[in-house]
Amino acid sequence: MQITKFAIPEVIFGNGSIKYLASCAHRLGARRIFLVSDPGLEASGWVERIIDILRKDKLECVFFNEISSNPRDWQVHKGAELYLEQNADAIIGLGGGSPIDGAKGIATIVSNGGRIRDYEGANRIMRPLPPMIFIPTTAGSGSDVSQYAIITDMERHVKMSIISRSLVPNISIIDPQILATNPRELILASGIDALSHAIESYVSRLASPFTESQALNAIGLILDSITRAAEDKDLDALKNLSIASTEAGMSFSNAGLGIGHALAHSLGGRFDVLHGMVHPILLPAVMRYNIPSCTRKMANIARTIVGVRMESSQTLAEQGCESLAVMFERMKIPVRLRDIVPDRSYLEQICKMAVHDACAVTNPREADWQDLLNICLEAW
Amino acid sequence: MQITKFAIPEVIFGNGSIKYLASCAHRLGARRIFLVSDPGLEASGWVERIIDILRKDKLECVFFNEISSNPRDWQVHKGAELYLEQNADAIIGLGGGSPIDGAKGIATIVSNGGRIRDYEGANRIMRPLPPMIFIPTTAGSGSDVSQYAIITDMERHVKMSIISRSLVPNISIIDPQILATNPRELILASGIDALSHAIESYVSRLASPFTESQALNAIGLILDSITRAAEDKDLDALKNLSIASTEAGMSFSNAGLGIGHALAHSLGGRFDVLHGMVHPILLPAVMRYNIPSCTRKMANIARTIVGVRMESSQTLAEQGCESLAVMFERMKIPVRLRDIVPDRSYLEQICKMAVHDACAVTNPREADWQDLLNICLEAW
Repeated sequence: MQITKFAIPEVIFGNGSIKYLASCAHRLGARRIFLVSDPGLEASGWVERIIDILRKDKLECVFFNEISSNPRDWQVHKGAELYLEQNADAIIGLGGGSPIDGAKGIATIVSNGGRIRDYEGANRIMRPLPPMIFIPTTAGSGSDVSQYAIITDMERHVKMSIISRSLVPNISIIDPQILATNPRELILASGIDALSHAIESYVSRLASPFTESQALNAIGLILDSITRAAEDKDLDALKNLSIASTEAGMSFSNAGLGIGHALAHSLGGRFDVLHGMVHPILLPAVMRYNIPSCTRKMANIARTIVGVRMESSQTLAEQGCESLAVMFERMKIPVRLRDIVPDRSYLEQICKMAVHDACAVTNPREADWQDLLNICLEAW
Repeated sequence: MQITKFAIPEVIFGNGSIKYLASCAHRLGARRIFLVSDPGLEASGWVERIIDILRKDKLECVFFNEISSNPRDWQVHKGAELYLEQNADAIIGLGGGSPIDGAKGIATIVSNGGRIRDYEGANRIMRPLPPMIFIPTTAGSGSDVSQYAIITDMERHVKMSIISRSLVPNISIIDPQILATNPRELILASGIDALSHAIESYVSRLASPFTESQALNAIGLILDSITRAAEDKDLDALKNLSIASTEAGMSFSNAGLGIGHALAHSLGGRFDVLHGMVHPILLPAVMRYNIPSCTRKMANIARTIVGVRMESSQTLAEQGCESLAVMFERMKIPVRLRDIVPDRSYLEQICKMAVHDACAVTNPREADWQDLLNICLEAW
């Protein structure tokens, strides 16, 4: 084991935890808060509720809702301009991964200057960011606890991974009650994103004992709760999915991800697909590719999926991939790559971009662009 | 599950991780560091090595070594005076629980003023502390990651529990290589302290999914590695003990402890015994007392100790307590309370103090002083 780092925000978790928002903001010295969210959350009434909580406690609030799914560089720059113009002194991100990643991008620019593409890659942010509090409204992205922000460079059509300890917020307030208003597809896509965070970080080259136990725990919780959470909006299942998503976030933030996410970023930059919908398509093929480099760990994952069996690690690991693929099919969501990519001819370009993604570095098995192409063809 | 909080420092873990100390201190803006340790670590050469690392990187260093085992209130005040006199701007604690708790006490006084007893109990520290980096030299206290400081009030002969999120340092640097120079008894006492942190926090009233998986993982690792670590100084076992101690620290810091620690503080305030040596005496009796209030969880602990068996939870839980008692006896360390308390007549006073200890609040089963007395008599 190499020297390992483990950094997470302070987490406040539980039904109703949102009520601590104003006291958290005061504790961080905030007076004029820049609230980043999106029109969907505005329509659902959550934005109003947050602004209410803040104003009742004498906190001013500037609201910015121009962050789309797969947030764009220009949206970040527009938000940063407004933040500075309005003399805000803290940032709250409310949403799924997109508004929170957008908030991270805005925080980066307002205190470090320049353009967001200047910070692509690992450890490029040099100056401390303003105080940040994130409130996730999906159980999946893990962005509310992680060192990652994914922003699309619209010129190059690339989803950039920006990775820095500075992107970990001061506080993450996770209130599973918020999830109950999400539609079925969003709960599934987010939960499968969390599952892929857990699986990819568990076998990452930078996995440590601090991340491994969280990742394995998350895998078990997600498999156990995702269907009940999505189909029945069962509150206990939503809570467990939320715990799992947070644990998976803590794990991947510190251990990194793999080629599954490298490909998902590449596909998302090109085709603007919902990030969580890429994983049910790619994950089984990516896991099969990785088996030779981490057979024992893949067998541990399989035990969580199919239960304890007396098979060899190799057989068990393969059974795990099979079972996962079957589970995704039963969810009646797209499970073939041809469902989201218009033509095979795009794949070479996608794979050539994906090998340069920061997530490819921590994948347990080396992969060049042809290896990725084979994975894509297996998933086609 | 109630609303739960989870806060830990940034952790840098691994053999050789000490080399990152100076860059960590610079990152926190430190220029003139107040280093708190004890004469034992000075004699072992570790203090000199730390001062070297700091000076080579242009950091000034004021050294304070007057912290004893079971650190006293007056030692904290003396340290705080020197800190202010010397215009230090950051604190490094190097040691087992005592120097680190001493460093926390000093940090509290220099930025909040008053006497250390003003901060006894939970959440009494109002102003932020100077930047803190802790380097644990034992695998046990967990103080380097926790919200706790235990300081003895010499007037009342009471070990005060001071509990505050402000006591979590900015960074904990955990280098398991340091453990290899520890004597057998210290490795055992520290490891058993960590075991009791894991067991007590796992069944605590404030346990959450974020602390439970860490606590269970820690229990397994400690049982697996403690003998090899203490007897053979096996480097892999020392590393695993160190991981376990850190996980147990993260767990109890956020979930709290129980009556085992309440009694240990009471005994330590009165008889100045080595904290870790109290747990092998009390833990089996404390666990037996708690079984009715957390039978299923005690059975989970027992499964980690004795392996998976087809017994009822009640039987299994009792077997776990038995096995632990047998393990402690084999270590040839004191296992009866009469080995550390001169006379039974002291017990009533000890128990009457222990019911007021902050750790008693999170115990899974209510206990008045007579209940504690029965536990002590069982352990006599």
